[in-house]
Amino acid sequence: MPEAESHTVRVDLPGREYDVVVGEGLLADSGAKIAALGFGNRLAVVSDSNVAPLYSGPLLESLSSAGFEPSLHTVPAGEASKSVSVVEEVCREMIRAGHDRSSALVALGGGVVGDLAGFVAAIFYRGIPFVQIPTTIVSQIDSSVGGKTGVNAPEGKNLIGAFHQPRLVLADTETLASLPAREFNEGFAEVIKHAAIRDGEMLDDIMKVGGPRGLGSLVARNVAIKARVVEDDERETSGTRAHLNYGHTIGHAIEAAGGYGRFLHGEAISLGLVAAGRISSQKVGLGVDSAQRVNAALQKFDLPTQLPADIGTDQILDLMKTDKKFAGGQIRFVVVPELGSAELRSDITEEEITAAIEALR
Amino acid sequence: MPEAESHTVRVDLPGREYDVVVGEGLLADSGAKIAALGFGNRLAVVSDSNVAPLYSGPLLESLSSAGFEPSLHTVPAGEASKSVSVVEEVCREMIRAGHDRSSALVALGGGVVGDLAGFVAAIFYRGIPFVQIPTTIVSQIDSSVGGKTGVNAPEGKNLIGAFHQPRLVLADTETLASLPAREFNEGFAEVIKHAAIRDGEMLDDIMKVGGPRGLGSLVARNVAIKARVVEDDERETSGTRAHLNYGHTIGHAIEAAGGYGRFLHGEAISLGLVAAGRISSQKVGLGVDSAQRVNAALQKFDLPTQLPADIGTDQILDLMKTDKKFAGGQIRFVVVPELGSAELRSDITEEEITAAIEALR
Repeated sequence: MPEAESHTVRVDLPGREYDVVVGEGLLADSGAKIAALGFGNRLAVVSDSNVAPLYSGPLLESLSSAGFEPSLHTVPAGEASKSVSVVEEVCREMIRAGHDRSSALVALGGGVVGDLAGFVAAIFYRGIPFVQIPTTIVSQIDSSVGGKTGVNAPEGKNLIGAFHQPRLVLADTETLASLPAREFNEGFAEVIKHAAIRDGEMLDDIMKVGGPRGLGSLVARNVAIKARVVEDDERETSGTRAHLNYGHTIGHAIEAAGGYGRFLHGEAISLGLVAAGRISSQKVGLGVDSAQRVNAALQKFDLPTQLPADIGTDQILDLMKTDKKFAGGQIRFVVVPELGSAELRSDITEEEITAAIEALR
Repeated sequence: MPEAESHTVRVDLPGREYDVVVGEGLLADSGAKIAALGFGNRLAVVSDSNVAPLYSGPLLESLSSAGFEPSLHTVPAGEASKSVSVVEEVCREMIRAGHDRSSALVALGGGVVGDLAGFVAAIFYRGIPFVQIPTTIVSQIDSSVGGKTGVNAPEGKNLIGAFHQPRLVLADTETLASLPAREFNEGFAEVIKHAAIRDGEMLDDIMKVGGPRGLGSLVARNVAIKARVVEDDERETSGTRAHLNYGHTIGHAIEAAGGYGRFLHGEAISLGLVAAGRISSQKVGLGVDSAQRVNAALQKFDLPTQLPADIGTDQILDLMKTDKKFAGGQIRFVVVPELGSAELRSDITEEEITAAIEALR
């Protein structure tokens, strides 16, 4: 084992504190760690058709050894499972498996599983406790931490959901080794975003990444960034949590313009980060060299920095307007005045956004 | 106007305090009262096909006069609308009507609308604030207060939902005059339950009710009972809130055995109250005369105290076992040792419940 130690990051929300444990091989010991939370013995494990064949075996075995009676609920892999109808189906399966308000849930998988299963936990019998076991870069450093759960509506992503904090997050970095290269790489869009908004020096470490092994420290460093933001602004009311949307206003619209199949989330966010970097340089003085460092990091992970010609700027702009980040019709746009800090602005014009999208061509 | 004054009951939940205002003719002034909450100007009004034709006109007019831009979303009247698919449809309608996280919601109707629309408010853009305008006895004195929201699964009622407290409840007792007699009457099952578990003397006032006018004081007295219970045990963890389930363990199962169409909710609860009264007499010494006073009050409102012969005891018992009140497989049963107090017991046997159901025949 190149890295035997584990890292624990505490998410300090009053009354709902929890640990994010990061380390290689955690899955084998997950049952004991979950047993320490004091749940009843009934657990529903929710996973998807890609992850369950790889990791549900060791997880269920560890849970059974720790005295749990787990049931397994597997949804089809892919974003299409983040739907209201799949939420209902999982709830119904859990009812038929005998679960009730005394049960708890374990989400095993990437961002789709975490968002979906977390939402199931939020609304099953009006809410049961849950544990996240994220198996991708993005879910380990971002989506499993902070309690945002939910599904998509046909009209847009993540429009139906709830804030429901997990009771524990177990990020086993060994699972990252099984990711296809493209999915491994896409996760770094959010890592690079974290560097841009909170920790410019991390870009040096990002440039040294040589593969999926030995990533524990970097994952934990990113979890800590996310945890501090969530502690400051759990429900995205003060504006701090909105900093995490850096690159996402344009990125989400590009993802939607590609029909959610053409770009992986991180690939669309990569394009959004390039555009937001340009706006930051023009509007709040981000050094052009700093913006270039971000773009170079994206390119190191084969993330796109150029927009395909067939995706229209008008289409992207229209999609931006149905996005959640438009509170009361006003554009809230995150900019980075210097690497490591961010601010939320309402004075970014449609013209400036249009020019930044055009510059991606 | 027989009753010009209004009654305000404060629900004192730390950080989520709200008022329940009870009075005749409140609807006409609802816009100003809602404006005082400080929402943005976008409001979604959710109602049903029975209530909207009667009261959405005055409500929308009052809201518009107060500066709101309300949209109206009407679901089919009836329990069938308490479904996940109707929740999704209302969310999608709201998105298409331009609502976002800065919007608020107003639920106008009885218990079905309040539970459904409250759940929509809980999960739309991960939660928006909402106001309850209940238009039936049960919704005014019970379901609009306390933040329980949710819908049914095919496997059972209220199995999917959330705790989401309203920001204001406006109970216009004038709306009670438009209720069909059977629906007016069924509401008194919960009023009588409140008397049994918290306020035995209220039975005298209940016996004096002469119709839908002048009910403001009685409604407010019941709201206060519900509010104090919710303050003690918002999330039904300490056991106090479970007192409200008096008569409901057997009542819910009878409602389900009737296929949710044969008995109105209050009619099934009436039967449950009679059975729970018998168990209370046998097990914790409730005076037989006290149990009789409860039964007489139910009969005053033409509520059933006798079970139709074609509904089997086994069927009721089986349905009880899938009910939420069975935490971890154990029966939690509420009994009343004397009028005005209640306690939660785990030692009521299946035999005792069986005998109480048989005694309803």
